[in-house]
Amino acid sequence: MQPIQPDDMPTPPVPLSPGMRAGDFLFVSGQVPTNADGSVLIGDFTAEVNSALDNVEAVLRAGGASLAQLVKVNAFLSNAALFAAFNDVYVKRVGTPPPARTTVVVDFGHPDVRVEIEAVAFLG
Amino acid sequence: MQPIQPDDMPTPPVPLSPGMRAGDFLFVSGQVPTNADGSVLIGDFTAEVNSALDNVEAVLRAGGASLAQLVKVNAFLSNAALFAAFNDVYVKRVGTPPPARTTVVVDFGHPDVRVEIEAVAFLG
Amino acid sequence: MQPIQPDDMPTPPVPLSPGMRAGDFLFVSGQVPTNADGSVLIGDFTAEVNSALDNVEAVLRAGGASLAQLVKVNAFLSNAALFAAFNDVYVKRVGTPPPARTTVVVDFGHPDVRVEIEAVAFLG
Repeated sequence: MQPIQPDDMPTPPVPLSPGMRAGDFLFVSGQVPTNADGSVLIGDFTAEVNSALDNVEAVLRAGGASLAQLVKVNAFLSNAALFAAFNDVYVKRVGTPPPARTTVVVDFGHPDVRVEIEAVAFLG
Repeated sequence: MQPIQPDDMPTPPVPLSPGMRAGDFLFVSGQVPTNADGSVLIGDFTAEVNSALDNVEAVLRAGGASLAQLVKVNAFLSNAALFAAFNDVYVKRVGTPPPARTTVVVDFGHPDVRVEIEAVAFLG
Repeated sequence: MQPIQPDDMPTPPVPLSPGMRAGDFLFVSGQVPTNADGSVLIGDFTAEVNSALDNVEAVLRAGGASLAQLVKVNAFLSNAALFAAFNDVYVKRVGTPPPARTTVVVDFGHPDVRVEIEAVAFLG
């Protein structure tokens, strides 16, 4: 077990490690869009999805992996109307063939969050 | 890492692999009830749950596994009133003892979906 | 694959194993706050979170693990207003550094549930 905290990512304000490596797998905590200081980024939705994926990518990189090694993604959106726009951004970022994925609509702890992405990467 | 796409399952309309094998595990993307052409199946709820499980089973089979090898299931329902009916169908399909499971109520990207099932199987 | 059922935990009323061990991982089913007879515990929220974590811990113990071996937690809350109180209890129970985690707001099958916690532990 090895906790993963990217050097350039603010320490989370809640009790979680941004990533945790265990065996051949790297578990990435749910990542929301953030500004450089760690506060929630509120922008156009494309920028928000890219920021959440940037954070996933930063955790993967700090753990020695990349988006191409994702095997499972869980995406959470605040509204069903966001699915198409989410997929438009997502498909440009993940590997081909893409990871397994589940995407559902939930609410978040912060009222301005519209997307959160958690992931599992394979390091084997 | 090996993506899993059953021969008889339409290519997903969104950027995901129906399954992804990594080490001894097979991650199955969230499966909803579908017609043969991949469109969302709207029927009685028992048929819907069976169809979602058929899709999980198809991904497992294409990855060399079966429902008896499931170790973890996450089920998503659109309404708390559906839990009992979901369990009635589910218990007839999964192995004994059943996999670990979490079931919560969420909304979906498609307004007619009432059940989505994702899973992890162990191939070791 | 090895199902985990703690001796002192009532058999779940739904078709799931409280835990399932597979390879080096132990998957813990979503745990809600419960009374000794397995019914849903309704109390102050701190007691509810502690009860859900007690149940997670019981499954881990029955599988030969402890909260310090958690690598990934998914917490589900019924209301965004509960996040701070959840974190206050959670941080006192999990190891340091804490596991990776995702926390979202959903609805539950039982109307009085306010928190459900599922987890993955590493046994390697």
